[in-house]
Amino acid sequence: MNNLLLIHQATIVEDWIDYNGHLRDAFYFLLFSHATDALMDHIGLDAQGRAIYGHTLYTLEAHINYLSETRLGEDVQIFTQVIDHDSKRLHIVHNLYRPKDGELLAASEQMLMNIAVEAGRAVTFATSVEASIRSVFATHRLLPRPGYCSRVIGIRR
Amino acid sequence: MNNLLLIHQATIVEDWIDYNGHLRDAFYFLLFSHATDALMDHIGLDAQGRAIYGHTLYTLEAHINYLSETRLGEDVQIFTQVIDHDSKRLHIVHNLYRPKDGELLAASEQMLMNIAVEAGRAVTFATSVEASIRSVFATHRLLPRPGYCSRVIGIRR
Repeated sequence: MNNLLLIHQATIVEDWIDYNGHLRDAFYFLLFSHATDALMDHIGLDAQGRAIYGHTLYTLEAHINYLSETRLGEDVQIFTQVIDHDSKRLHIVHNLYRPKDGELLAASEQMLMNIAVEAGRAVTFATSVEASIRSVFATHRLLPRPGYCSRVIGIRR
Repeated sequence: MNNLLLIHQATIVEDWIDYNGHLRDAFYFLLFSHATDALMDHIGLDAQGRAIYGHTLYTLEAHINYLSETRLGEDVQIFTQVIDHDSKRLHIVHNLYRPKDGELLAASEQMLMNIAVEAGRAVTFATSVEASIRSVFATHRLLPRPGYCSRVIGIRR
């Protein structure tokens, strides 16, 4: 994980626990959503960058694999890999780990799109944002593709 | 949509709105999670059924396509189609609609697994639960596969 971005850390709170006593499926996704916020900060689309460029990122599509139960009070970390990008899109995988025992709890592959807020349509990344993405991708493209990537849901018979 | 299950209805609340003024990606997923709770009620895995059988459903894997922005105060409905099942697994698509204009806001394909809570492992559905699933699937298998199904995430070049 050393070359991935440690992008977000959190502790599981009571509001996120379901009737099984575990983190509800949707709140794994909230952790990934906060990780995307942190990734935006990292590439220059923090509140100031969004105001300057008038851009934001929308989630177009996401896939999530649930691998292990997560409980109240546990600390978790998200490490993010940039898988691909073009002039408007960012293809990433967020990996949710429990640092206590190194367990991978869930992985979420996502496609994000750069959007001009006023016009409400997809536009190319601002130059400095694209430079930040290229800089991260220069390292991440050399890493193996994560296991939970390009998955199709279905019952195989 | 007439033959699908209208499984859940909700109104978008302030806590679910992000800095773009829209429903945050993770809270679309919370709506789908509540829809899965309602589906469990529908097939006999409500609180009473879970206590009798000692079973619950876990989400193994999910895919979500974001199709339209959703705002504070809007009413939404989720219609669910059973795509496939075997003795332990349920393959579904939840469709999130805005009834005011009929817009499909998002779709989520999911694989759910029947779990024996005490043992913490996958087991076959209880007989009456499987009968409920078969009864729904008898209608849904005749319907066309929804568009946002079997998707793979990636930038095509």
